[in-house]
Amino acid sequence: MKNLVGAALLGQSGGPTSVINASAAGVFIEALKQPNITAVYGAVHGIKGVLNEDFYDISQEDLYELELLKNTPSSAIGSVRYKLKNPKVDDSEYRRLLEVFKKYNIRYFFYNGGNDSMDTCNKISKFFKKSGYDCNVIGVPKTIDNDLNVTDHSPGYASAAKYVATTLMELYHDATVYDTKQITIVEVMGRNAGWLTAAAALAQSKGQGPDLIYLPELPFDFDEFFSDVQDVLNQKGKVIVAVSEGIKTKEGKYIPELFQELRRDAFGHAQLGGAAQALVNEISNRINVKVRAIEFSLLQRSAAHLASKVDVEEAYKAGKKAVQAAVKGTTDKMVGFKRVSNNPYKIKYVLLPLKNAANHEQTVPLEWILPRGKGMTQEFIDYALPLIQGESKAKLEDGLPRFAKLKKVRVTKK
Amino acid sequence: MKNLVGAALLGQSGGPTSVINASAAGVFIEALKQPNITAVYGAVHGIKGVLNEDFYDISQEDLYELELLKNTPSSAIGSVRYKLKNPKVDDSEYRRLLEVFKKYNIRYFFYNGGNDSMDTCNKISKFFKKSGYDCNVIGVPKTIDNDLNVTDHSPGYASAAKYVATTLMELYHDATVYDTKQITIVEVMGRNAGWLTAAAALAQSKGQGPDLIYLPELPFDFDEFFSDVQDVLNQKGKVIVAVSEGIKTKEGKYIPELFQELRRDAFGHAQLGGAAQALVNEISNRINVKVRAIEFSLLQRSAAHLASKVDVEEAYKAGKKAVQAAVKGTTDKMVGFKRVSNNPYKIKYVLLPLKNAANHEQTVPLEWILPRGKGMTQEFIDYALPLIQGESKAKLEDGLPRFAKLKKVRVTKK
Repeated sequence: MKNLVGAALLGQSGGPTSVINASAAGVFIEALKQPNITAVYGAVHGIKGVLNEDFYDISQEDLYELELLKNTPSSAIGSVRYKLKNPKVDDSEYRRLLEVFKKYNIRYFFYNGGNDSMDTCNKISKFFKKSGYDCNVIGVPKTIDNDLNVTDHSPGYASAAKYVATTLMELYHDATVYDTKQITIVEVMGRNAGWLTAAAALAQSKGQGPDLIYLPELPFDFDEFFSDVQDVLNQKGKVIVAVSEGIKTKEGKYIPELFQELRRDAFGHAQLGGAAQALVNEISNRINVKVRAIEFSLLQRSAAHLASKVDVEEAYKAGKKAVQAAVKGTTDKMVGFKRVSNNPYKIKYVLLPLKNAANHEQTVPLEWILPRGKGMTQEFIDYALPLIQGESKAKLEDGLPRFAKLKKVRVTKK
Repeated sequence: MKNLVGAALLGQSGGPTSVINASAAGVFIEALKQPNITAVYGAVHGIKGVLNEDFYDISQEDLYELELLKNTPSSAIGSVRYKLKNPKVDDSEYRRLLEVFKKYNIRYFFYNGGNDSMDTCNKISKFFKKSGYDCNVIGVPKTIDNDLNVTDHSPGYASAAKYVATTLMELYHDATVYDTKQITIVEVMGRNAGWLTAAAALAQSKGQGPDLIYLPELPFDFDEFFSDVQDVLNQKGKVIVAVSEGIKTKEGKYIPELFQELRRDAFGHAQLGGAAQALVNEISNRINVKVRAIEFSLLQRSAAHLASKVDVEEAYKAGKKAVQAAVKGTTDKMVGFKRVSNNPYKIKYVLLPLKNAANHEQTVPLEWILPRGKGMTQEFIDYALPLIQGESKAKLEDGLPRFAKLKKVRVTKK
C-alpha cells in the first residue's frame, strides 16, 4: 500500500447507462480535492484514449458542470468496446499503456465498466506490478445488466429497472384500452442475465404489468409460450409479454435464429429484428389477432429522466469511494455493494478483488424465477424494489433537461 | 339554448394520450358538482358503450381516485376506434343512440377525441336536434397528432412532444458515445401531420438532437436523404435522424411500400416494420456502417411520467369548461384554445362549431419546415416550446407511479 503522488485517470467503458456519468462526477470531484493527485484526466473513449494518449483535462471544467454530470445520461468522455489482447500472447498494448502512464505520471487509474472492463483493469494492474510501476488501480462497477458478480448489484441497473417497470405500467394502460384482442410483446435488454427483464415483475406486482415474463436463465419453449399466450388471450382478451433479448431454446438457439431456420425462404433472406419481432411474426403466422412488438432499445439505458435516486447516489459515491481508497493506497480492487438490510434499505461499500469481479456473469437465481413465464418470486421483488426508490434528474431549462456541457479541453500531448 | 336536467355521459375515443384521462377528470369532477346533472356516466369503450347500453356509474368513484386520473395515462373507461355509419345512408345506429339517451335521460354528452370523434359528435348532435331530443353535446379535443384544426393545439400533443424532445436528447448522448460510425433512425407517430416529429427540433435547438428531421408534409426523396445522411456521417461520424411514420414520396408511396416494390422477393414476402426500419434496411444494403432503427411506438403516447404540466392543466380545464358550457345551454361545440401570447404563454378557452373541427386535418405550415431535413424554423420553436413547460405526474408509491384505480361500477341496464 503506497501513497502515491501523481495524476489520476478515469476511463468509461462498455454500453452506457443513465448513471455512468454520476460515477465520473464522483471520481472527478473527489480527485480534484485530493492533495496527492496532481492532475485529473479523462480518457477519450476509454482504454483506446489511453493507447492514443488522448485525454481531457478535467481541471479545466467548471465544478457546476461536473455536478450536472450526476444527471446526464451516457458516457460524457466517450466510451469504447475494446478488449485488450491477452498479455501472455502479446503484451505490446500493455507496454504501450505503461509508457503512456509513465509519460504523464499517472499514479491512479479508475475504470468504470462491466465484466470485461474489470478484467482489463485487473490485467493492467498485474502488468504494472510486474513491471515495477506503482499505480493504484480501482474498478468502478457499471452495467444495466446487473451481471457483475460479487457485488449485491451494480450502478446503472436500478435506473434501467425503474424505466422498465414504469414504462410497462404505462404500456399496460395503453395496451388494454380497446375492446379488441391484442398481444403486445416487449423486448428488454440482457443477453445472458435476465435481471432487467425481471424488473417487469415490479409492474406486475402492482397489477399493471405484463402477464408473462421470460428470462434467458430458463430455456424458452415456443409451443408452451404460444399455449400460455392463448390462455391469457382467451381469459382477458389482451396479453402483454416481456421477453429478454437473450431468450433461447434448450438447444441454445436464439428466437430469431430459430424461426429463421424454420422459415428461411429460397433466397436465404433472414428475418429481421430481435426476439420480440420474431415472436410477433410467428404468432401472426398462426392466429389472426393484432400483435405488436416494442423494443425498449437504447431508451432503457439512457432514460436519465427516470433515474432512481438510490442508483444516482450509489453511482456517485462509488466514484468517490474509489478515489478515497486509491489515495489511501488500495489497488487491484473494485468498489462493490454489500446489502446490510432491505427494510430500511442499507448497503455497505466494500472493496473486492478485481479478479473476482472479472469475466464471471452473475445470472438471476433460478429459484427466483417462476416457471412458464409466470413472473418472479417475492425474493426478487424484495431485492429489486429498494433499488428503484426516489427520483434524481436534471433540472429543466425550457421544459427540457439541462445536461452537463463539458468544455472538453484536450491535454497537450507530451 | 336550454338548461336541461338529466344525466351526463362521457366517452373516450381514438388513440390514447398521456392526458385524455385529465380531460375525463375535468368532466367527471365538474359534472358531479352541477345541480342540473342528475347522474354521471362513463361510456365503456366510447360510442360502442352507448350502443351497448354499457356505462360506468361515476358517482360511485372516490373523488381522490378521480383526481388521480389527471396523471394516469391512456383511457381509463376504455377507448374505441369505431366510425358510425353515415346517417343519410343508414340511421339505425343514430336511432339506437337516441333510444339509449332517452332511456337513461342523458341530457349532456361529452366526447373526447380527434377529428373522427368530433365528426361523430356533430352527427349525433344534428340527429338529436332533428329528432326533437334536447341534449347538449360538447366535444373535447384530444390527439398527440395535433391535427385538429380551428384550435391552436390539442391536449395530448404537448406531452407527447415533450417525450419526443426529451428522449431524443437522451438518445443523442447515447448514440454518440463510441468512436465508431453509427446511424440512428428514430420513428415518430403522425401519419399525415408532422407536428410530433417536428418536436424533434426542440432537442435540436439545444444542440442535443437529431441532425435530420423529416415530416410527412414534404415529399421524401430517398436519394437526397441518403446523400444528406452520408454528408453528416462524413462530417461527424454519427447521424441521428427523426422521421415521421407517414413520410412518403412525391408519388405518395410510404417508405416501406417503396422498398417492398424494389426488393419484394420471388415469394412476395413483405419487408417488415415501419419507415425507420425500412430506411435502416435500405441503408444497410448500400453502406457498411452500424445502422439502428428505434420506434417510439406506444411509449410516446402513454409516457405520463413525462407529461407537460401545461398540457395536463389544459386537458383538465378543457373537460371542466365543456361541462360548464353545456349546463349553460351550449351545444354542438368543441372546446378549443386560442393563443393570446407566447411570452408569457397565455391561451383563451373558446367554443368552436363542431362542424369546423370535424374531419379536417391541420398539418404543419410548409413555411415552418426547412428543406432537406434541416429542421424547423424559429416560428415552430416559439409555437411549441411554451406547450412543453412544467411537470405534472403521478405521485410515487414504492418508487412507481400511483395511477388511479377506478371501481368501475356498471350502471344497471334499464
